[in-house]
Amino acid sequence: MLGTLKEEDIEKLLTEQYIGRLGCHVQGTTYIVPINYVYSNGKVYAHSAPGQKIRMMRSNPQVCFQVDQIRNTFNWKSVVCWGRFEEIADSSEKQNVLQGIIHRMMPLTNTPSEQPSHGTGKTDAYDEEIIVFKIVLYLKTGRFELNERYN
Amino acid sequence: MLGTLKEEDIEKLLTEQYIGRLGCHVQGTTYIVPINYVYSNGKVYAHSAPGQKIRMMRSNPQVCFQVDQIRNTFNWKSVVCWGRFEEIADSSEKQNVLQGIIHRMMPLTNTPSEQPSHGTGKTDAYDEEIIVFKIVLYLKTGRFELNERYN
Repeated sequence: MLGTLKEEDIEKLLTEQYIGRLGCHVQGTTYIVPINYVYSNGKVYAHSAPGQKIRMMRSNPQVCFQVDQIRNTFNWKSVVCWGRFEEIADSSEKQNVLQGIIHRMMPLTNTPSEQPSHGTGKTDAYDEEIIVFKIVLYLKTGRFELNERYN
Repeated sequence: MLGTLKEEDIEKLLTEQYIGRLGCHVQGTTYIVPINYVYSNGKVYAHSAPGQKIRMMRSNPQVCFQVDQIRNTFNWKSVVCWGRFEEIADSSEKQNVLQGIIHRMMPLTNTPSEQPSHGTGKTDAYDEEIIVFKIVLYLKTGRFELNERYN
């Protein structure tokens, strides 16, 4: 059985998951990259070191964001959204977002009380190496496939 | 530790995985969709019902293909490739590809000896509802992050 996800199922999947794929495009080149994110109220919050995806999104802020939950080939959900990249420059908003991302990610490791050993875990909002951004979603779609026989 | 995957590690990840994300772009819209695939010799083989991704790739065959293996936020591998969409029209090649995909997918369900109950498992090369295609890759890149502490 193939179907379309309801609005509430789309919101649930976006909220429950923490890894999505971001797709951006500049001058004939499409680029997909997995990102850690936190979803809240129609916005996807994430951070990144400077690099290809940031350069591309600064050039063309129209992006695609995709999240899925795949049990197997015949049982899956996938949400595809479109939105606009916006960089977060304000120090306190930046710090709030970074803390939210860290709190979302930390329980997923085996040492939840520790900070990660590399740059992505820094909470110093003044660290210019970390770019914090949001994707303001304007369209969300979702599909699923369910086959009890292969569940 | 962040790093670049060697050519052999890129080939290994592409071969071992069976779900990837395809990114296509037409007239300002980027679209990411998860697909089942079989990788062989620089080519990604897959099938699809007619729909948005097929329409988009027929219009612009330059696509991005991304595969990853994510243990957690601090331990992952990701391969990003670029290639050209080519539809497979020849009946015997189409049938060979479909059988290859089915053999790759079937051991992943709990009932490997059975055929799936819906269209994607059909092997009839004359079924015009199923489009079989390959992505001929021309560039493959790979990155990884490894943090024993969070493994």
